[in-house]
Amino acid sequence: MANQSITAPRGFQVAGLPCGIKRSGKPDLGVIFCATGARSAAVFTTNQVVSAAVEVCREHTRSARVYAVVANSGNANTCTGKQGFKDAVAMCRLTAQGLACEPHQVLLASTGIIGHPLPMPVITAGIAQAVTRLSDTARAGLDFAKAIMTTDTRPKQAVQRIKIAGKDVTLAGTVKGAGMIGPNMATTLCFMTTDMAISKSLLNRALSQAIGNSLNKLTVDGHQSTNDTAILLTSGLAGHPTVTRQDANFARFARALEALCDDLARQMALDAEGATRMFKVVVTGAATQTDAAIAARAVANYDLVKCAVNGGDPNWGRIICAVGSSRARVNPDKLTCKLDKLTVFRNGQPARFDVKQASRIVSQTEHTITVDLGVGKATDFCYGVDLSREYVTINADYHT
Amino acid sequence: MANQSITAPRGFQVAGLPCGIKRSGKPDLGVIFCATGARSAAVFTTNQVVSAAVEVCREHTRSARVYAVVANSGNANTCTGKQGFKDAVAMCRLTAQGLACEPHQVLLASTGIIGHPLPMPVITAGIAQAVTRLSDTARAGLDFAKAIMTTDTRPKQAVQRIKIAGKDVTLAGTVKGAGMIGPNMATTLCFMTTDMAISKSLLNRALSQAIGNSLNKLTVDGHQSTNDTAILLTSGLAGHPTVTRQDANFARFARALEALCDDLARQMALDAEGATRMFKVVVTGAATQTDAAIAARAVANYDLVKCAVNGGDPNWGRIICAVGSSRARVNPDKLTCKLDKLTVFRNGQPARFDVKQASRIVSQTEHTITVDLGVGKATDFCYGVDLSREYVTINADYHT
Repeated sequence: MANQSITAPRGFQVAGLPCGIKRSGKPDLGVIFCATGARSAAVFTTNQVVSAAVEVCREHTRSARVYAVVANSGNANTCTGKQGFKDAVAMCRLTAQGLACEPHQVLLASTGIIGHPLPMPVITAGIAQAVTRLSDTARAGLDFAKAIMTTDTRPKQAVQRIKIAGKDVTLAGTVKGAGMIGPNMATTLCFMTTDMAISKSLLNRALSQAIGNSLNKLTVDGHQSTNDTAILLTSGLAGHPTVTRQDANFARFARALEALCDDLARQMALDAEGATRMFKVVVTGAATQTDAAIAARAVANYDLVKCAVNGGDPNWGRIICAVGSSRARVNPDKLTCKLDKLTVFRNGQPARFDVKQASRIVSQTEHTITVDLGVGKATDFCYGVDLSREYVTINADYHT
Repeated sequence: MANQSITAPRGFQVAGLPCGIKRSGKPDLGVIFCATGARSAAVFTTNQVVSAAVEVCREHTRSARVYAVVANSGNANTCTGKQGFKDAVAMCRLTAQGLACEPHQVLLASTGIIGHPLPMPVITAGIAQAVTRLSDTARAGLDFAKAIMTTDTRPKQAVQRIKIAGKDVTLAGTVKGAGMIGPNMATTLCFMTTDMAISKSLLNRALSQAIGNSLNKLTVDGHQSTNDTAILLTSGLAGHPTVTRQDANFARFARALEALCDDLARQMALDAEGATRMFKVVVTGAATQTDAAIAARAVANYDLVKCAVNGGDPNWGRIICAVGSSRARVNPDKLTCKLDKLTVFRNGQPARFDVKQASRIVSQTEHTITVDLGVGKATDFCYGVDLSREYVTINADYHT
């Protein structure tokens, strides 16, 4: 089988291993290395409280060339004060030392528990070990994907392959998800690699578009982490002339990147904490796209809707209630709601429908809720997941 | 024991009975009657989609005198189209016929499932029966309190007694709560009676102040119902001169009303769907009171905080994360957090504290989370409850 990991594009060697941050002994440290240096683009959480890793990484993404990324799970290095900042800087320095580059050429991401200092002795030893294990195999890519997991039950990887000027270009990514995934964020931790030859400004543009239409559309519990980071690196080794304009080649790359991110977003949804089902909320007939996005998220974040989906119950009244209590403008006399293609509410009046059919729709692994606000022509969507007893168990029993 | 129900103030007769809306055969219809006519004040949900009952009741609260209130549980009469509006009008007309007043002198409230037409035959018969059972006993008051319950496990009643110009004045209330209780709403259904002689404009002022500082401070799941209604009626029969100015007597009444509403709000919190614990979030050091309110609600609505409280886990990192992702301005370097009096985070740095003590605090039936945003001097608070497996069970298994 073709390599499905972030080592699929040319020019990347990676490693992932357990260094001892997690008491469970599971993998918790990963390194990505691009020996030729990579162009990078990144987006971060908009939470006002951010991890020291985010503070440091934001600075380092300004570098023209990036040689490495170091990431850990098991500890977020957030709310850790000045020591946390020093530790984040040290992680970059240690990685740079091992790989003969500058500290500002190393990007950084952390995820895990908030408010505990990083265990620097084990991280120091772990980085020293990781840089000796770098490899471009699919196995190494999978090791990295496992090293960023927190409450994920499985690693998440995706690959897209396109042709640019007759050359094979590969895009690959891995993501960690689970809980604390909400709107207005970059994502949880997401690392993508490619060998597309493209300018940094176009790389940035493609990334923000792709994230906006995929990972930012997913909401598990409406929460916005302090650590969300999505990093895209390109080795530029595909062998075609560098794309520097928004031409057809750029469009092809941007579409592939969006498909990659959408694939990762859906994997996250289906592996969200306690989730048994996902659903897509499509809002039409909104006054503005902002209104459409607000209404879609209101439905996807509405605990009573999420519980109804968990129970396989076509409780459209809760959907209407969610939309009505959002800040999006609605026309109550024109409101219409469909479950997949089944109309359950039309122009503010209950529709006659087969309740068993509606239950079957809501009981699927995925279904689509469409709500027309009856005001204008704007539209937007988002992905949501059900709320289960298991979600509560995971988050009530996760002790600090 | 003194009468603890809404028949405690002079001038009110009430009834509550099962008329057949609920399949369970539990009480589902209530009537309040004030033979002398009552001054009224009311506040309603701000959801854009509202029950036909809310539409009709809003109109009727303009009447100078109100003689009756009719309320039902088991069916919200929401998203029921034109028929729903006709049915709401009919409920007032039937009650008015039974009590020899005008339909516009009857207030109305409904709660229950959305999107199903009211079963008017049983409601018609129920109203006819209720008006023959009116009584000023505590038992009748309790019957009414039971008739408005949905997933509440117990009726909720409260009484306050004050002296105005040497006369005994009584304030009483009953409320239904459980789920779908969120910010920016009036409340769920709340009915209050008093015999205070007071002008309609001051009655309105006292009600909106009291609700703003009590029921509006409670959030169970951040949801805003389509039916929220709080009604305050006064018979004016206490025997003192009518209060028409914001003097000391008005202040005494306003304080008593606020205490009444706070009592009811806390009863609602402790009987919220699946709730095992409640907590108060106090935000200090905010730039504005709006910011303080936003930050307090962000914490109280944050599923991960609510799950942590359910597990008795002092997970202050989630509190900081909630505040940081809210729209309230925070200074990350000044952020401070306390659990009751125990400081767990000070000026952006983790504080040393006894984890066992912190766990004990969070495991209490009630505790206070205080967060200082480090920006200004404004403050506000709200009440929240934990998120339990039982909440999911109630709302996943409640089939439409």
